[in-house]
Amino acid sequence: MNKFNSKITKMKALYFDKKLELRKDYPIPVPTENEALIKVILAGLCNTDKEIMNGYVPFTGVLGHEFVGIVTQCAQTEFIGKRVVGEINIGCGVCSLCKKGMQNHCPQRKALGIHGKDGVFGEYLTLPIENLHIVPDEVSDEEAVFAEPLAAALNILQNVEISKQDKVAIIGDGKLGQLIARVISTTSCDLTMIGKHESKLELAQDFCKTMTLNESADLENSFDVVIECSGNESALHYATLLVRAKGTIVLKSTYAGNIKINPSLWVIKEIRMTGSRCGPFAPAIKLMQDNKMNLTKLINEIFLIEDWENAFKAAFSKGALKVLLKLTK
Amino acid sequence: MNKFNSKITKMKALYFDKKLELRKDYPIPVPTENEALIKVILAGLCNTDKEIMNGYVPFTGVLGHEFVGIVTQCAQTEFIGKRVVGEINIGCGVCSLCKKGMQNHCPQRKALGIHGKDGVFGEYLTLPIENLHIVPDEVSDEEAVFAEPLAAALNILQNVEISKQDKVAIIGDGKLGQLIARVISTTSCDLTMIGKHESKLELAQDFCKTMTLNESADLENSFDVVIECSGNESALHYATLLVRAKGTIVLKSTYAGNIKINPSLWVIKEIRMTGSRCGPFAPAIKLMQDNKMNLTKLINEIFLIEDWENAFKAAFSKGALKVLLKLTK
Repeated sequence: MNKFNSKITKMKALYFDKKLELRKDYPIPVPTENEALIKVILAGLCNTDKEIMNGYVPFTGVLGHEFVGIVTQCAQTEFIGKRVVGEINIGCGVCSLCKKGMQNHCPQRKALGIHGKDGVFGEYLTLPIENLHIVPDEVSDEEAVFAEPLAAALNILQNVEISKQDKVAIIGDGKLGQLIARVISTTSCDLTMIGKHESKLELAQDFCKTMTLNESADLENSFDVVIECSGNESALHYATLLVRAKGTIVLKSTYAGNIKINPSLWVIKEIRMTGSRCGPFAPAIKLMQDNKMNLTKLINEIFLIEDWENAFKAAFSKGALKVLLKLTK
Repeated sequence: MNKFNSKITKMKALYFDKKLELRKDYPIPVPTENEALIKVILAGLCNTDKEIMNGYVPFTGVLGHEFVGIVTQCAQTEFIGKRVVGEINIGCGVCSLCKKGMQNHCPQRKALGIHGKDGVFGEYLTLPIENLHIVPDEVSDEEAVFAEPLAAALNILQNVEISKQDKVAIIGDGKLGQLIARVISTTSCDLTMIGKHESKLELAQDFCKTMTLNESADLENSFDVVIECSGNESALHYATLLVRAKGTIVLKSTYAGNIKINPSLWVIKEIRMTGSRCGPFAPAIKLMQDNKMNLTKLINEIFLIEDWENAFKAAFSKGALKVLLKLTK
């Protein structure tokens, strides 16, 4: 059991201010009365981190938002010593959206390691207690660190009804595509992952059919639902071709800047499109508890925070899947 | 009552083959056993006609798809002498989409005056009997000719649930926007038309609030539903700003070629988007029968077919609303 040592007030953290650097004397955050202090065990590197580092999203502070950790300080003492994961959006709590439970869309929201709130690439973080979810014993640290992106994948099922009868395509064989395949496979629909990398497609074969882009070329108008999570600029147009008339495109990828697209086909085919972002943690944790999802197969490598430069190189190299930082030795 | 004179076999028609020209000896079409021959009374000019003339949609034949006419020949004799309007899509009848009643999306479909089937800018046309709808006496020729675009406007209500509680914006004060305002106002929702032209906005004031683009500048994240029908390239981005998180954008406009847009906001705000095209004629006719919609106020001018060049000039000049061709003197 990790115990909080109140004499230590400094920690190691990856701080971003136009560039990323390791600070060894960053102040350990002090929780407010509604917050918990959490000692990070593992943190996950996500494409959003890369986007922030490339300046697409303005942010200054400790980077990172995917984590599993142990609560070391908390006004609600039953949390202390518990292993937790945490929702990343922190609403203002008083606006009409927050009151409707839509904190994720609060215009004043902060987001862990993304906007207005220090993130998880440090030894400690603080987070509102209401954002925390206790990790059941059956779920390992290496699985639990996937809670945030897995919840984001699950959000698709909150936005779109997918039934056993539906033909569904996932465009993208990367980290997000892999998690989405695992989540959507629980609907027992007719699921196909379309990607570029044989080795990544292989990782999804326990959960869906897989094919390369070339193999999918004659499948225009074939799918009830197409989920675009490749982040490739041309993929949204390709999704428009693959989906049937009156079918649904789910857009998970964000793009850096403008893309060129002809939306006329959306009108002609009367396509529905839905953007999908953060999702519910509780069912994500339940999914990890109940299902064999082989999440740890998606981990390429685990680095110590001191080796962060190699970690980032590995995470954002071509063909990479999940790279983790180990914060607690 | 117009009677078909079987000795006449030639007619006037506006024929498009890379350019539009008036042919005075175009053969009167001969209906198949499932078709009716219809003498055109009035035909409406639509932006799609302009797009075809600009080469965006490949088509050779008699142009035009909005009409009201009188059946002069038909195997189902009860139609003869009746005033009709007609649905423009002609499915193959045998594919899985046609069998589901989705003829509008049949991959082999023909479309009146748009694809593979001579249209209505001639004295006569043929159309499958099942595409015809008889016009009730209370609906004038000048109103009935709006059946097709009014049905297209009505299709929005088939794609999106709009209730009295919803705040809805229409971007665009043109022909389509005007019809959409009339249709959406029947839901008693809180409806606002946003446009550029004071004179056109005025035409909608019996049906909704109106405001100029400038006046709408501080309404970001305000609307449950935003309907884009301006055809302006920047309007889709503007719709993305106006709609609330998890709100719906209805896309009615088609665009010539690619537009530049950043879809990230669709993901971040989890926007739903739905393309909407052709719609149901029966409720459109019922709407014209039951509601005072001041459709004739939307008519700028009526031209004889011989004066087609001026008609097209008037129809596609800046600020124009509906221009009609009168085919039966």
